[in-house]
Amino acid sequence: MRTCYTGEVSKEYLGQTVNLFGWVHRRRDHGGVIFIDLRDREGLAQVVVNPDNVQAFEVAERIRNEYCLRITGRVQARPEGTVNPDLRSGEIEIVCDEIEILNASVTPAFQLDDDNLSETTRLTHRVLDLRRPQMQNNLMLRYKVAMQSRRYLDDLGFIDIETPMLTKSTPEGARDYLVPSRVNAGEFFALPQSPQLFKQMLMVSGFDRYYQITKCFRDEDLRADRQPEFTQIDCETSFLNEEQIREIFEGMVTHIFRTVQNVELPTFPTMSWTEAMQRYGSDKPDLRVKLEFVDVADLMREVDFKVFSAPANDPSCRVVALRIPGGGAMPRSEIDAYTKFVGIYGAKGLAYIKVNDVASIPEGLQSPIVKNIHVDVLKQLMERTGAQNGDLIFFGADKAKIVNDAIGALRIKIGHSEFGKENGLFEEGWKPLWVVDFPMFEYDEGENRYFAAHHPFTSPKDGHEDLLETDPGKAFAKAYDMVLNGWEVGGGSVRIHRADVQSKVFNALKIGPEEAQLKFGFLLDALQYGAPPHGGLALGLDRLVTLMAGADSIRDVIAFPKTQRAQCLLTQAPSAVDEQQLRELHIRLRAVENK
Amino acid sequence: MRTCYTGEVSKEYLGQTVNLFGWVHRRRDHGGVIFIDLRDREGLAQVVVNPDNVQAFEVAERIRNEYCLRITGRVQARPEGTVNPDLRSGEIEIVCDEIEILNASVTPAFQLDDDNLSETTRLTHRVLDLRRPQMQNNLMLRYKVAMQSRRYLDDLGFIDIETPMLTKSTPEGARDYLVPSRVNAGEFFALPQSPQLFKQMLMVSGFDRYYQITKCFRDEDLRADRQPEFTQIDCETSFLNEEQIREIFEGMVTHIFRTVQNVELPTFPTMSWTEAMQRYGSDKPDLRVKLEFVDVADLMREVDFKVFSAPANDPSCRVVALRIPGGGAMPRSEIDAYTKFVGIYGAKGLAYIKVNDVASIPEGLQSPIVKNIHVDVLKQLMERTGAQNGDLIFFGADKAKIVNDAIGALRIKIGHSEFGKENGLFEEGWKPLWVVDFPMFEYDEGENRYFAAHHPFTSPKDGHEDLLETDPGKAFAKAYDMVLNGWEVGGGSVRIHRADVQSKVFNALKIGPEEAQLKFGFLLDALQYGAPPHGGLALGLDRLVTLMAGADSIRDVIAFPKTQRAQCLLTQAPSAVDEQQLRELHIRLRAVENK
Repeated sequence: MRTCYTGEVSKEYLGQTVNLFGWVHRRRDHGGVIFIDLRDREGLAQVVVNPDNVQAFEVAERIRNEYCLRITGRVQARPEGTVNPDLRSGEIEIVCDEIEILNASVTPAFQLDDDNLSETTRLTHRVLDLRRPQMQNNLMLRYKVAMQSRRYLDDLGFIDIETPMLTKSTPEGARDYLVPSRVNAGEFFALPQSPQLFKQMLMVSGFDRYYQITKCFRDEDLRADRQPEFTQIDCETSFLNEEQIREIFEGMVTHIFRTVQNVELPTFPTMSWTEAMQRYGSDKPDLRVKLEFVDVADLMREVDFKVFSAPANDPSCRVVALRIPGGGAMPRSEIDAYTKFVGIYGAKGLAYIKVNDVASIPEGLQSPIVKNIHVDVLKQLMERTGAQNGDLIFFGADKAKIVNDAIGALRIKIGHSEFGKENGLFEEGWKPLWVVDFPMFEYDEGENRYFAAHHPFTSPKDGHEDLLETDPGKAFAKAYDMVLNGWEVGGGSVRIHRADVQSKVFNALKIGPEEAQLKFGFLLDALQYGAPPHGGLALGLDRLVTLMAGADSIRDVIAFPKTQRAQCLLTQAPSAVDEQQLRELHIRLRAVENK
Repeated sequence: MRTCYTGEVSKEYLGQTVNLFGWVHRRRDHGGVIFIDLRDREGLAQVVVNPDNVQAFEVAERIRNEYCLRITGRVQARPEGTVNPDLRSGEIEIVCDEIEILNASVTPAFQLDDDNLSETTRLTHRVLDLRRPQMQNNLMLRYKVAMQSRRYLDDLGFIDIETPMLTKSTPEGARDYLVPSRVNAGEFFALPQSPQLFKQMLMVSGFDRYYQITKCFRDEDLRADRQPEFTQIDCETSFLNEEQIREIFEGMVTHIFRTVQNVELPTFPTMSWTEAMQRYGSDKPDLRVKLEFVDVADLMREVDFKVFSAPANDPSCRVVALRIPGGGAMPRSEIDAYTKFVGIYGAKGLAYIKVNDVASIPEGLQSPIVKNIHVDVLKQLMERTGAQNGDLIFFGADKAKIVNDAIGALRIKIGHSEFGKENGLFEEGWKPLWVVDFPMFEYDEGENRYFAAHHPFTSPKDGHEDLLETDPGKAFAKAYDMVLNGWEVGGGSVRIHRADVQSKVFNALKIGPEEAQLKFGFLLDALQYGAPPHGGLALGLDRLVTLMAGADSIRDVIAFPKTQRAQCLLTQAPSAVDEQQLRELHIRLRAVENK
């Protein structure tokens, strides 16, 4: 057995003989001596093979990169001037007594330290790619996050209960992955989009505190931060109110950062959804960016400039200003680039005012639009936005969604830019918050009905139960998202624990009693047996770890991810299957023309 | 928030006012006072509602079984004579100050303490069934087993790495569950039968020690101890030999029993597969049963009794004796019942000899077959089996498989019977062992080829590599099963880490190079990059917990199991789905006549 991991050999082992296993990271001849950087999951150590050890030297001459070796040798201090302070083993080297080649390697498809590999190459040769120290660290970090979550929840009496992977298809929500049943011809299981209903039933069964770190599945078109299968830290508890539930899970994330990365998170501020949308145009604001929306529709109602006055008078629209301190110095080309950028989000233009001298209005304001706006309004604008000389003020005026998306994205873009960082518009660090009091429903103009903003099992705020029937659009929910640096890392809610309230929500969603019974009858039944008040949260493990690792993509924190075409390049899944298999499942392929 | 769980209120709280949440387990009026047994996951406590507390009494009169309550009250000692030593809270009761009904309950579908419920009733009303203290304890036990496994493995540097649920179908082994791909028309994912290949690739990637507690899927016809989805504690490690690997996992199970049930397991003896088959006719012998096979074919070759002499001269057959100490007292009816019983396993009869007086042969032996066997042979039989006066000796003579199955089952049956327990043929307690040195292959007469006994990635014993090509049936494997009281609770092997050996195994299995490349190319590729020596084990969590809980079925340790027809009676999965869903997946149902 090994003495320790290769990456763990340090000064403490000086003078000792150690037995190590690892891979050849690099081999070089230098002055008739062979140096091997031996690598394992904990790091590198330098092995020196002297020519006077004839047998070992003969073996060392044959080895190539990525050979798997066992090495025995004596630990000695590196000669002065060759110490490597970046390595744990940087002060020592191992003088080789014996080398055993455990397995040879063909020439690797790429150099492990090549930083310019395409993702296709990396995913095709994932087994090699995972040998890269960064990927080793990412998966190790992921493990620590999961294990610290478990330890925290265990200490609080939460128990991990496994819920089924082969569940019932309930096409409310995202698209299901289906699994044809062999035994029950013509029927299908669905892979779970979340264990939501099962965890609620566990609360009704009295398990009181549940968690599970589990795979969930959504067959949706993939974006950069989406995978067909993703992992949730899924939790539920009974008998606590909204604040008490949030406190537990804020504590969990705080515990994770403390124990895994030695980072002390600040207390999470709480912000209503309404306020978040007002100040940041987003329900997951990145609070590191020191820029805020200022609503100015009331000032713009009578200006002689339709681009502003029309939306200012339309309740479905929004008119906002975004003041950029010091933005007056921004070159025209940058402003043009931002104008193009907001176009991605549907904004038809990007009006702005450069504030040269706030004391002399209108002359001190530089902008094509100034002439269309009355001096009094300009003065009020300057006052309300708190404009200073040298600032730039951008404007958004359109349908509320377009303004929120476009100016919200602009806010992030500028905050994260070189300009933003140099001008103090961006504050490094971790900025968590809770966004609370989400609306119960979102109206879908196309389908002409309400959809659940969170999910249909979310409790309305106290006193909003009647609104479910009279004015669903005005009902707010006991729903909360945990937001970190602009990412939604978790979301949850207090659930409905009374069958009558649940039925009202189904009504508001135009799910009739019969359909509700068919799809969710088992939940409605369960709620009738003295269901306790309960609620919970699901944290997205992939996202949380991506953030903590500073990775570019969630694919960098998943061992064997799928591509954006939902394929595994390593194993070539999905793939064609035998006719016999399809026959047993009572299905056939549709004709090729349907492809 | 609650003071503590209801089941945790004890003498320590005497005189204190406590706030409790729970369900009404029972309510009774007695002498004008209402007594409520309040229940939560930790147990019961007795609440006393006195009529002088008018408001609480009025509420208490309305409550029924399974109502969900909040109760505030003062803890006092129970009056003498009413102490219940079976309850943690048995010495105290709570004098109610205040009751709040958190949720009412309709009359439960059954009484929670009804022990005669059909499984159909229990699974249909699983939410209620899970409230039963036994089910609460089973799932709590399951959690503790899983969590203690994690703690043990974590301490040894194992890390949990998630492998995909949407994988490639490789129809070597059991039948796959398939998942049609929407994006890649005509192609399918398979749900994993185990993470075997992924964990091997993680070893090649250098993660060194991996584990995962994960769902696996097999679409096979279900038996009592099988589910479509089941849970494995799946582990793999590099650079250790077979004994070192077994030591780690023996340590894990020992740790689990010690920490979860305060049971000290004995050291696991190691027994070769060959010896286990010889002595017990089984590769998972229940060592609690003190009965062993004695091979007697060599004695029977020339007896004047074809039932014995024919198999005794056929190398594919086996002739064994099973001595039952004290079995001479068994009534004829019991022997007849056993004769019928072995018929289930294909045995055509069950010969026996009653040993009345071992000193006078043949007169002292009572049996229809004695007259056909020479006195010398009878004497040798008595000597070899160690027969004593009063014993009974059963015989099995048939194809080896039939003898092993039939006499093996008989051995267990008698050992576990009243007779066996009264006659010291059964030793209570935990009897673990390792069964090792399995054959590499099993020959399938029907398909006229070898199949992997464990799986095709298992390493042959040192020195058996050449047999893979010359005489596969004689090759033994570095494979091992962990057996506990007659149950296979885990199995594993040292894996092949060299591509050339892996190819030889594929050849022996008649998987040609082209097919191997198509199905397992990614593994063969991986093995070429300096794959380390590695091996591992998978423990069946469901089975282990079933054993530890003393449960009748693995369904009693799974929150939401499927029936033997692979259905969820609670949610009615699987179910029909919309035509639109099938269309998106490029499949259609086969015509009804195929059902």
